Amino acid sequence: MTGELRVIPVRGLPEIGEGDDLGALIAAAAQLENGDVVVVAHKVVSKAEGRTVRLADLEASPQARDLADGEDPRRLEAILRESARLVRTRPPLVIAETHHGFVCASAGVDASNAPDLGTLVLLPVDPDASAQQLRTRLQESTGRDVAVIVSDSFGRAWRQGTTDVAIGCSGLAPLLDLRGRRDATGYELHATVIAVADELAGAADLVRGKTDGVPVAVIRGFKPHGVGTAREMVMPPERDLFR
Amino acid sequence: MTGELRVIPVRGLPEIGEGDDLGALIAAAAQLENGDVVVVAHKVVSKAEGRTVRLADLEASPQARDLADGEDPRRLEAILRESARLVRTRPPLVIAETHHGFVCASAGVDASNAPDLGTLVLLPVDPDASAQQLRTRLQESTGRDVAVIVSDSFGRAWRQGTTDVAIGCSGLAPLLDLRGRRDATGYELHATVIAVADELAGAADLVRGKTDGVPVAVIRGFKPHGVGTAREMVMPPERDLFR
Repeated sequence: MTGELRVIPVRGLPEIGEGDDLGALIAAAAQLENGDVVVVAHKVVSKAEGRTVRLADLEASPQARDLADGEDPRRLEAILRESARLVRTRPPLVIAETHHGFVCASAGVDASNAPDLGTLVLLPVDPDASAQQLRTRLQESTGRDVAVIVSDSFGRAWRQGTTDVAIGCSGLAPLLDLRGRRDATGYELHATVIAVADELAGAADLVRGKTDGVPVAVIRGFKPHGVGTAREMVMPPERDLFR
Repeated sequence: MTGELRVIPVRGLPEIGEGDDLGALIAAAAQLENGDVVVVAHKVVSKAEGRTVRLADLEASPQARDLADGEDPRRLEAILRESARLVRTRPPLVIAETHHGFVCASAGVDASNAPDLGTLVLLPVDPDASAQQLRTRLQESTGRDVAVIVSDSFGRAWRQGTTDVAIGCSGLAPLLDLRGRRDATGYELHATVIAVADELAGAADLVRGKTDGVPVAVIRGFKPHGVGTAREMVMPPERDLFR
């Protein structure tokens, strides 16, 4: 049984740019303990990894212009390049499946919190690898054994608003599988798999805010266990009723 | 800017049955403070409200038998009665829109944590009203001004696992609307609405477990503000790309 959790914003990080040693910066700003879950907004991961694109460097294809509906078609071009498949479109809104398999608005391409107004931030090429590298760097810098989640804000079908979810993870099992356990009345919880990595990402978002530049939060008391990747959380096509 | 959050499991609640004064029981078990968000799993709300049905009292319709695929067709009958519309079916799996407008598996009908093995637990008739009543009762019992969320575990399109979301809420705005604010670079966050009530519900789930009988958690430090209902979180049909 889990005890109390603490969700702690990490303050004092500088503005992140390409090539920055994000792990060392987080290690210096946070007082990490063994078993902490460090949740990092993908924006700073992407910026450190140089996963940004300048609008001025993009040329809009005819499809991008069709989808732009009065917005900058070069932004749509960036979205198309990050998409494996378009799931729904209502120009200029695009819901896409990314090359990682995530289904989200604009294939994760975002202009908010970008380095400057002419730049878009993309998702990391491999957010699970990003999480693993950050975890290794945090352990090297602090000597603490922590888990790392890289998060993004996703919309949801049928519900308004976004919640943060895990798009990369290292050092914990993102899905807590209770199948086969029994509840207090003896009923077997045969379909209960909890997306704890997403709940952790959402909890971190509550202390972070979007406008105040606090991209990292630490969750203490969760006692992460197991191993796994955020890629595992993508619903396999054969089980997906909503493709 | 939000500071640190604490997510505190509330231990020592008795097994809940129809007619129990759930608010008074929570007030006695928790040490509430002003500004706390009390997240209550709908199961105990439904049980206190008598929103359960015995399989023995149900007769399966032909449609229920068609959908059962070898499972008990009376369970499917309960699901059909709770459904305004079936969204997807892969017997015996049913994704339905409830009479409240929520889209979820089995229209929220659940056999786990039921009073006994022959009983199903339904969603409250009006979970926002349930949250409001609980809030009033908590305030009467403790003198503290708190917010209340009634939660359930929902699956998501495209992603594996469930996360807890708010199906009822009182004393806070479930959606934090950042539209019109500017980030550090001056970019207007024109489409950023955060479903904080869902993130709070998910955070509470992290300390609750499914098998250990801790249906209530308190979130301290969030500083809830505004008013609203969980019903507001349902995507309006005209904006819903996934109906």
